[in-house]
Parts: sequence; C-alpha cells; structure tokens
Amino acid sequence: MPLGERGGDKSDSRYCGVETEFNEDMPLALSSNLSSGFDFIVCPLMDPTYRPSQMESLALASVLPFAGSDLVLTPSQWSSHVVGKVSSWIDLDSDDQLLRFDSETTLRQEISWASHLSLQACLLPPPPGPSCGNYARCVNHILQGLNNMQLWLRVPLEDKSDDDAMDAFSNHLHSETQNDSWEWWNSFRLLCEHHSQLSIALDVLSSLPSGNSLGRWFGEPIRAAIIHTNSFLTNARGYPCLSKRHQKLMDGFFNHSVQIVLSGKQMHNVPMGNMECNDLANSHFDGTDHNPLRSYLDYIGYLYQRMDPLSEQERFEIGYRDFLQAPLQPLMDNLEAQTYETFEKDTIKYSQYQRAVSKALVDRVPDEKASTITTVLMVVGAGRGPLVRASLQAAEATGRKLKVYAVEKNPNAIVTLHSLVKLEGWEKIVTIVSCDMRCWTAPEKADILVSELLGSFGDNELSPECLDGAQRFLKPDGISIPSSYTSFIQPVTASKLYKDVKSHKDIVHFETAYVVKLHSVARLCPSQPVFTFTHPDHSTKKSNQRYRRLRFEIPSDTGSVMVHGFAGYFDATLYKDVHLGIEPSTATPNMFSWFAIFFPLRTPICVPPGSPLELQFWRCCGSTKVWYEWCVTSPCQSPFTTPVVAPIGLGCRVCFSGRICIVA
Amino acid sequence: MPLGERGGDKSDSRYCGVETEFNEDMPLALSSNLSSGFDFIVCPLMDPTYRPSQMESLALASVLPFAGSDLVLTPSQWSSHVVGKVSSWIDLDSDDQLLRFDSETTLRQEISWASHLSLQACLLPPPPGPSCGNYARCVNHILQGLNNMQLWLRVPLEDKSDDDAMDAFSNHLHSETQNDSWEWWNSFRLLCEHHSQLSIALDVLSSLPSGNSLGRWFGEPIRAAIIHTNSFLTNARGYPCLSKRHQKLMDGFFNHSVQIVLSGKQMHNVPMGNMECNDLANSHFDGTDHNPLRSYLDYIGYLYQRMDPLSEQERFEIGYRDFLQAPLQPLMDNLEAQTYETFEKDTIKYSQYQRAVSKALVDRVPDEKASTITTVLMVVGAGRGPLVRASLQAAEATGRKLKVYAVEKNPNAIVTLHSLVKLEGWEKIVTIVSCDMRCWTAPEKADILVSELLGSFGDNELSPECLDGAQRFLKPDGISIPSSYTSFIQPVTASKLYKDVKSHKDIVHFETAYVVKLHSVARLCPSQPVFTFTHPDHSTKKSNQRYRRLRFEIPSDTGSVMVHGFAGYFDATLYKDVHLGIEPSTATPNMFSWFAIFFPLRTPICVPPGSPLELQFWRCCGSTKVWYEWCVTSPCQSPFTTPVVAPIGLGCRVCFSGRICIVA
Repeated sequence: MPLGERGGDKSDSRYCGVETEFNEDMPLALSSNLSSGFDFIVCPLMDPTYRPSQMESLALASVLPFAGSDLVLTPSQWSSHVVGKVSSWIDLDSDDQLLRFDSETTLRQEISWASHLSLQACLLPPPPGPSCGNYARCVNHILQGLNNMQLWLRVPLEDKSDDDAMDAFSNHLHSETQNDSWEWWNSFRLLCEHHSQLSIALDVLSSLPSGNSLGRWFGEPIRAAIIHTNSFLTNARGYPCLSKRHQKLMDGFFNHSVQIVLSGKQMHNVPMGNMECNDLANSHFDGTDHNPLRSYLDYIGYLYQRMDPLSEQERFEIGYRDFLQAPLQPLMDNLEAQTYETFEKDTIKYSQYQRAVSKALVDRVPDEKASTITTVLMVVGAGRGPLVRASLQAAEATGRKLKVYAVEKNPNAIVTLHSLVKLEGWEKIVTIVSCDMRCWTAPEKADILVSELLGSFGDNELSPECLDGAQRFLKPDGISIPSSYTSFIQPVTASKLYKDVKSHKDIVHFETAYVVKLHSVARLCPSQPVFTFTHPDHSTKKSNQRYRRLRFEIPSDTGSVMVHGFAGYFDATLYKDVHLGIEPSTATPNMFSWFAIFFPLRTPICVPPGSPLELQFWRCCGSTKVWYEWCVTSPCQSPFTTPVVAPIGLGCRVCFSGRICIVA
Repeated sequence: MPLGERGGDKSDSRYCGVETEFNEDMPLALSSNLSSGFDFIVCPLMDPTYRPSQMESLALASVLPFAGSDLVLTPSQWSSHVVGKVSSWIDLDSDDQLLRFDSETTLRQEISWASHLSLQACLLPPPPGPSCGNYARCVNHILQGLNNMQLWLRVPLEDKSDDDAMDAFSNHLHSETQNDSWEWWNSFRLLCEHHSQLSIALDVLSSLPSGNSLGRWFGEPIRAAIIHTNSFLTNARGYPCLSKRHQKLMDGFFNHSVQIVLSGKQMHNVPMGNMECNDLANSHFDGTDHNPLRSYLDYIGYLYQRMDPLSEQERFEIGYRDFLQAPLQPLMDNLEAQTYETFEKDTIKYSQYQRAVSKALVDRVPDEKASTITTVLMVVGAGRGPLVRASLQAAEATGRKLKVYAVEKNPNAIVTLHSLVKLEGWEKIVTIVSCDMRCWTAPEKADILVSELLGSFGDNELSPECLDGAQRFLKPDGISIPSSYTSFIQPVTASKLYKDVKSHKDIVHFETAYVVKLHSVARLCPSQPVFTFTHPDHSTKKSNQRYRRLRFEIPSDTGSVMVHGFAGYFDATLYKDVHLGIEPSTATPNMFSWFAIFFPLRTPICVPPGSPLELQFWRCCGSTKVWYEWCVTSPCQSPFTTPVVAPIGLGCRVCFSGRICIVA
C-alpha cells in the first residue's frame, strides 16, 4: 500500500519496495511483503547458483532454472509488484573467459524472462568500475530490442573522501576521478547513448558525499533509491531513523518521483510490545506480520507523510514539469482566449505593473498639478485589457488624470477590449487602436508607454524590436515600463530534456529553445547575466544584435558533471525599484506567467572538476527574423575523454521569426 | 445531457446538438438549449448581415460584429458546448468579385475567431458543387495554420434519383456523377490532401440514396449528421418519428461516433398535455421548457436508448477500433506472457482444434484398435501448451491412445510448459522439445502434426515455411492440422487508416501491412480468395511464391468510391469440415484471436461507377525473408480525373523477416 496520501502527489514516489533474496515460492515471497505494507519486491528471478556452463546438456540448459512458470503470478501481479534483479555474480568485464561467457548468457536470459513477464523494470548490478565496456556493450545491445521495460543500473552513492566505505567498490580505481561512481554511470550511459530505457537505482549508504556532489544526480534519470538498513541510526526509543542529511535527501527523492527500496538485514531490535497502534492493528490483521524491515518502512512512511502537501501553484505546474513546449510567438501568431485567460490570472504580475505605473505617474505629475495635467499613457500589446485596468487603477490610487490608448494587433482580442471598455464605462478615457504598434500613426505622443512583451528569456518574444517601433510616439522625456530587462543563463544537467529533444532524431530540434518547467534538473552554478535592453533608447547607432562570452565555475566539490544545455531566465526593471522576474535568486514570488527557457546542446559536454565552462552566445538580427546562436568553447580538451563524446563547440541556432506588418 | 446510457459506449455519439440562428445573447441561446436536453449548439458567430466591403472604415472593419466578447461564456463553455457555424451566404467560387472578396475575408475572420475561442469544431457551408476550387484552396490554406480545431464540411446526403430533392443543391450540375454529393466531398478533400482536421457533417434529408451508396460514407470521416425536421414522419399519436431506413442509418451513426444535430423548424404539433411523464418532469424542472425541437430530441434519445449494449467482445475490441498495429512476428520475436495469456482465452479456437484432432484420431485409428495403437502427435509451436491440452482432451474424448511431442522455440514458454506437464501429470505422455521446428531432429515420425502459426492473412506469420520444415518428420500418410488455409482480400474506403499511415510522412509505412480492428471502414464488395497453402505438400517442385490477379466489381448503385487500401482475412480448414477463419461471410463466431489485416495504397484510387478494380498481388520469397507486393492496375484511365490524384499502379511491399535458425 502507498506510503501515505500527499495532497496533489500522484507520483511513483508514493510506492516503496523491498529487496529480497531468491525465493522458489514467489507467491509467498510477494504476499508476505505486500501484507507488510511494501508495494513491490526487487528479487532475483533465477537461482543464484545457476551457471550456464555447468548445465549438462543443451536440452537442460534451455529449461531455465526458475522458481516456477510464469503462471505462478497473474500478469498484473508480475508487472505491478515485481522488479527483476539480475544475478549479482555476473561480471562481463572479467579476465576469466568462462565467467564472461556465463555472465553474458545469464544477463540475456534473465532480461528475456523479465520481458516475457512484462515487468516494468529490471535492476542491473553496479558496474565494477569505470572500465565496463563489455557490460555496457551487452546492455546497449539488449536495449535495442527491448519492449518497454526499464533497466535500472545500480550505482553506489559513495563518499569518495571516505576510503573505508569505498573498499567494496574500488577494485579498479586508479585516479581520483575514477573514485567517483558518477563517472562509472556517465561512462556506461554514454556507451549506451543516453538510451531512454536506461536509468539509475542509487545505493544510499551510511555516509553521503557533499551537497553539490549529491545535487548533480537530480538531473539524471534516477528511478529508485536503495536504502540500506545499515545507513539507519537509532533513536532514543530504539527505533531506526536517518541522519538530517539523509532525511533531506529522502525529501529530494520524494519530490522527484524516485521510489524507495529498502535493503539489508534487520539491524534494530524493535520489541513487538513497543509497536505503535496502527502497527499492532495491521499485524493483528494478518496475524503473521513479522517482517523484519517493517519498522524501517514505517519510518520511511513517516518521512513521506510529514512532507507539506503540494501548493496550489505546484499542483498547477506539476503537469508541465520537464515538459518541453515551443515558446509562444505572439508577434507571429495571435494568442487564443484560453492563453489570455491564463495570463490574466497572474495577479502578482499586474500588481507589480500597477505599482510601477503609480510611481511613474507620481514622478511625472506633482501632487499640486494632479487635477490639471492629463498623462497620456499607451498600452502597446493591450490584449484583452489587463494592463489598461492596472494603469487606470494606478491613476485612481494616485489621483492622477489619465488618457489611455490601447494598441493591439489581434482582432479577436479587440472584440473583448471593446466590450470591456463599454462594460466599465471607460469610453471617454480609453481609445482602442486595432493595429500593429510598429505601423501605427499615433495622433499624439505618450508620456508613458506600458508593455508586457517579455518572454522567458526577456527579449525572445521580440520586445526590443516592438518597442523600437513604438518609441516613435513616446515623448523625448517619456517613460517606458518596463525600462529595462536582462536575460540570465546557467548550465544544467537535464538528461530527460536532452533525451526528449534527441528523440526527434533531427538537428532542427537541437536548434530550438524550449519553454519548460524545470524540475528534474541539476543547476550546476549560479546564473549569469547575458543581454540587457533599455527603453527608450535614443542613441543613434543602436542595434539589437548582441554577443557575450560567459565563464562558469562549477564548485569543485561537485565532481564531474554532464552539461546537457542551459537554463535561461529574465529579470525586468519595470520602473525604478519595481522589478519582475524569474531568475532563481531574485524571482518574483507566486508569479506563474513564465517558465524557464532551455537551450539544448546537440552533444552534451562533460566538465571535469575544476575546469571552467565557457559559453558564447549571440543574438542575431536579419531583416525578417531574429535568432540566437550559442556554443560551448571550453573545456576544449576534456582530461576525461570518453569515446562517444563528439568534439565540442557545435553551434546551435534558434529563430524567432518576425512578421511582415500588414494592417488587417 | 447525453442521450442516455449505453453499456460500454463512451463515444461522442451520446451527445446531440441543435442548429440555431444567430443570437446576440449567446449565454441565453446556450442555456435555453442546454436546459432542453441538447449538449451543444451549432450557431453562427457573426451577424449574417455583415459584409466586410460594407464596413465604412478599416478601423471599424477590424472590430468584428460579434454578439459580445469572448468573456460572455467561460472557456470551457465555448469549447464544450459551441460549434461555430460559418456564414452560409459565403460563395468563394462566385463570378462576382466583390462577393468572393467578402466571402474569403469572412471565412478567415470567422475561423480565426472560432480558433481564438478554442472551439472544437466549425461547420463550413456545403460546396456549391464539384467546382469549388477557390473554396477548397482557402480552406486548405486555413488548415495549414489551424490549432487543433476540426472543420466540418457540410455535405447533403442527397438521393440522385430524386430530382426534386436535389434542386436546392444542383445549381452547377451537368453530368450524372456530378449529381452525387460524394463527388463534391471527394473533390474538396483531395484538394485539401486528406487533411486530418477536415471532416464531414452530413445533411440527412427526407429521402435517402441506396444502401450501397450510403455505405461508402462510413469509411469517410463523418463527425456529425444534421437531421432536418422535415425528414421526420408522424406516428399515430402525432409524434415525430423516422422511416425504417432512416432508423437504420441512425444506428449506423450511433455505432460510428457520429454526433446528431437537429435542424429546422418544428413541423409537428405535439400537445403539451400528451407529453410523457419524464418530459413533464423535465419541463416542470425549469418551468420554461418550450423548446420546439424537444419532441424530436426525445425521439433521437429513444432510438439511442433502444440500442443493445455493447457485447463483451465489442467492449474488448472497442479500444482497438481502427488502431493500426504492426503484425506479430512470432518467428523473429518471442511472444510475451501477456500475449500467450490473451490468445489462450480464445476457447472457441481451441474447441475447433479439439474437434479437428478428434476426427483425425478416429479416422486414423478404428475403434477396434483404439487400445492397441498409439498415435504420435506433434504440436509444433506449442507455446505454453493450449494445443497440447486440446489434443489430449480429443484423445480422451475419442478413447484413443496418444504420444505427444511439444516443440517450442521460445525458452521462456518452455519454462511454463514444463511446469504444466508436471502439474497435470503428463510426464509419460508428453515430451517437451526446446527447439526451432525447422532444425529439430525428431526421434520418430508423426501421425498428426498440429500447429497454430496462422496470421490474419493466413500465411503472413510464415506458417508455410515453418510447416515445410516440420513436414520432414511427418509420416507419408500423416495429417497436418490445419490441412490448408486461404487468404482473402477486399477493397475498402478507410480514410482514417489512410491518414494514420500518411501521418508518418514516409514511404516505408505505406509498404507495411497492419493488423487492425476495422470499424470506420466501407467494405466495397465481397472479398475474393488470394493464396492457398495445403499441408503436407509432397510435390517435388513446390514453392511458396505466389501471384494472383483479382478483379473486383463494385455494385454500380454505390456511385464513385475512394479505395484507400485492401482488407485481408483468412480461412483455414483444420481437418475435413472443421474450419476456422475471419473472412466476414464465413467467420467463426466469438473468436477474437485475429483482427483483419490492412494493406494501404500510397495514393488512394478513385473508382467511378461501373469500372472494375484490378489488383495484382505477389508473395515473394528470398533466402532470409518473405514479403508481399501489391498494386492496382485498373481503372487505368479514370474517366473522372481529379488533378491531385497521382498516376495509379504504385507498387507496395511488406516484409516479414525470417530468422536465421540458431539453437539456443
């Protein structure tokens, strides 16, 4: 049964499994663990003493030494409650040829059997170290013909500063980076070309690596975290519990749809008499609940249940997590009513605009002239009118007189705008102009120009080009709201996003930027500013072309990382100290109009510890379109060379087509 | 509210709409019809007096003369309950240039507004006749940039033998085929290249064309059927009702997810006092239910509710309707447990096999020798054992002694087979052989060879090649069950299947055959046999290559038709009079192991009335693979030439790769 109910959470992290030994009586193994509260078991499907080469004849060899037929469980029991565990004795990179042969045969037979049962996943033993070429080759070959089963590669989450803990996994280690199990994973998945059915089961041990080192795993495809009983501490009442750092890590798993699997022997003796009420009730229910890991499961359930329910905003966003969307191109395409509807609900955004307009009005018209001077304010890109409303509310709050022009190019939005003006009785204050702002001949000049033309990366919806066109009808001392905006960028590990882009099997999807609610992403270092635009800009030789070289330093205790692309954000100064933005360190709270933008790299770049990452970024302008180009130019020669990593420095390009202006 | 509950039916045909006039008060128009029991309204979004050229200024022209803003209804009301109706005065192929200009502008504005509202569909007026080039061009252009809204082209379902009824739509008619509104539709959709968002709203009038003529529409993308009140008759109690032929047509609509839309004025005066109880209850509920079409809606609801609930088999199959699947290739791929599970549930199939084995046993061993002769029976392709069980049951029923060899190449199925034999205590009777039948060296020869290697098209899972291999160990006078099988083929209109194949945008998908539960398909004439295979075949010069030329005569009262491809079936003689098959006229009832197969045509072929359709079909064999090729060679020169129809005679090819035999 699930660990508990968490409001809004329907992810797999509600389910908890248990690693078990090989058991000939599979129905019993399953039912005893399910009745103890586990949702699934991770168990070997084949007798661990089986070696193909020891079978006496071919005929015998072809009858696999399984516990029973596929009929011992129903198809839905197999697929819902059993994860297959590939024999852990296999070593496909051994020098012993017979062991290699037996390993390869067994691996294929076990995965074939698991596929036959339509299991959702199979757990692969950890690679013996970074030198796992034959193992990866065989797995890659199996992946090519696999049904939709996942393969979970077991990877120890080791602390490389702690040598003792490493002994079990450190047979092949030579240099420091090879101590890092992330390197083993990286090498393995590169040899399997980021295959979408290859994912990770992290072995969580008693000591943990640094926070930065841990963080990078959250951009990788972790499906399960195997928590060993010897990682648990003991609380004052004798019960198992986890360290604060382990608890925080568990919260991370719960928030990233990672399933917990308990493993190991019972290390805590919890007296039956001490068990809590609901435990007693449950054990009473079946009478035989002596599962040795029950107290560990209860603790995991406790950690899950104490999490906060998902907030309203999180529930709204959960369906968009890590889901790539093409950015809106409102200049080329007219927005639909539902899109306006969604954006208009973002009250935080419009209250910031109202604050900005208020301050501008007060600056422009002193109190003593409030009743005599009428400020001319133009909303360019008025949509269905939310900025018109915010501006009028600012005028009312400050007692200033206002005359508003609402300029909008979408004829469908104009219909609603007319209806709004009529409904609110604004006919004498608001003039509606159905026109592209770049072509409008204004009857007078404006004191204040208000717009909301910003994309997730600031200028990517062509705000600079539109406002250049609108600037013609702003007074020389007039104010633009926003007065400036800056884009920001940050390298990320984002294996899911990378795979989704790659799944299109073409280059054009790598030459696109995507709007996406970043979630299973590791942000590798603080973001840096890229391009800034200021309005109005009366300089004579202005250009909206831009170029910037950025150098990122990834904290050295992170270890090596894979950069799959860059996350982009913006911050805008509406007026003076009133800002609006999504750059993580300064983001406006509770605003939901913008997700981040993602610039993918055609070939992900592995950055070793201590190496700087250099990115070059261009904003290019043609007569009919604007686009970005980007490339990584360092680390040029990676000290860690993996054969499938192509040369770096590939240029990528994204186009935001403009529209030839035609008055409807 | 839906027309009623029909067990298992979750399709759109539960919802009934009503065509309404333009109404400035949209909320009222909607609520009054919803409260009367309709689920949606089909209504003009723009004042019918509007003509762009009569607008006084550009500024005014850009404010569309709509009833209100998009805010008068919520986004979900718009999208769930309103279908937009494009102004019916438009004529894009008029000789009057001003009318053409106004028509084109209005069409674009109305569809743009409907898209803005995220409506699910917009109803386009009927084409004025087969000459509708400019109308189709504009619609095609709009389709290229449309969001996911459907465009329903209104097409009258006219009876061409009835000239009076045609008057309203026959301005441009010249020849007989041009009388046929299907031709208008066909011409229009060819010009729009079978666009997936272009579908049909059929206008159902008082007289109906022939059954064959009606039938072809069910292979076309009908989304709605508009039933006019003047198509209704009057029953003895004064209520509206439909003719038997109309009723049968309605059943067809209900079964094909077609939504009914009522249209026209009230033609029956049903006194309020006469209304039935539930009507009274409903009208009592809101107090103002005087909807003039209520009695027609009640009758439609009655027709819907009297339909039989979907059978168990239909419920199982409903999710597979018109869904293309790649055929299984059990020789190349091992089947999964779930696939075996599904097939083993087909009790009809195995009882036919049991009957066949029984007859063969009785023929082979006379009653007086039943206790002395042991028949050797080999099941080749034993899977998890259902044919072994059927054979043993036949032996028990006939009192014959049996020795069984169960030969199976899938090592995963062998596991279950061993378990079955142990469980049933068959060790002394059944010998399990884990081997590909083509390579097995049998220790003795068989009296009876039993197999189930048939695909939807008979030989397409390589039964001939497998049984040629197995024939080595059949006695010269031995029996093969099945003893023969024949494939059948039939031309079909299947626009959905064609579009699904086309959506892959490559040729390889047109060179593939698909397993599919045919539903929205018009079968244009009886199927014809293609290839027959007989086993055993001891002839010396045998070959599994085949070639056949077929000539189909489509009934001439059908009218012109579009052939999107061919439906394939099989019929197998298991033994003497025991057969098994899916050919529609002789199909074994309640058997669900096989859906039909579909061979697509890269370019659909239009066949005019009276023209024969000639198909050529090959089965080709190479050393490692077997494939089909097919092409249409007549009508060579279609008398009805449509410019976008490419030359016929394109060859298509489908491969079923064999497997190089390797003993595991």
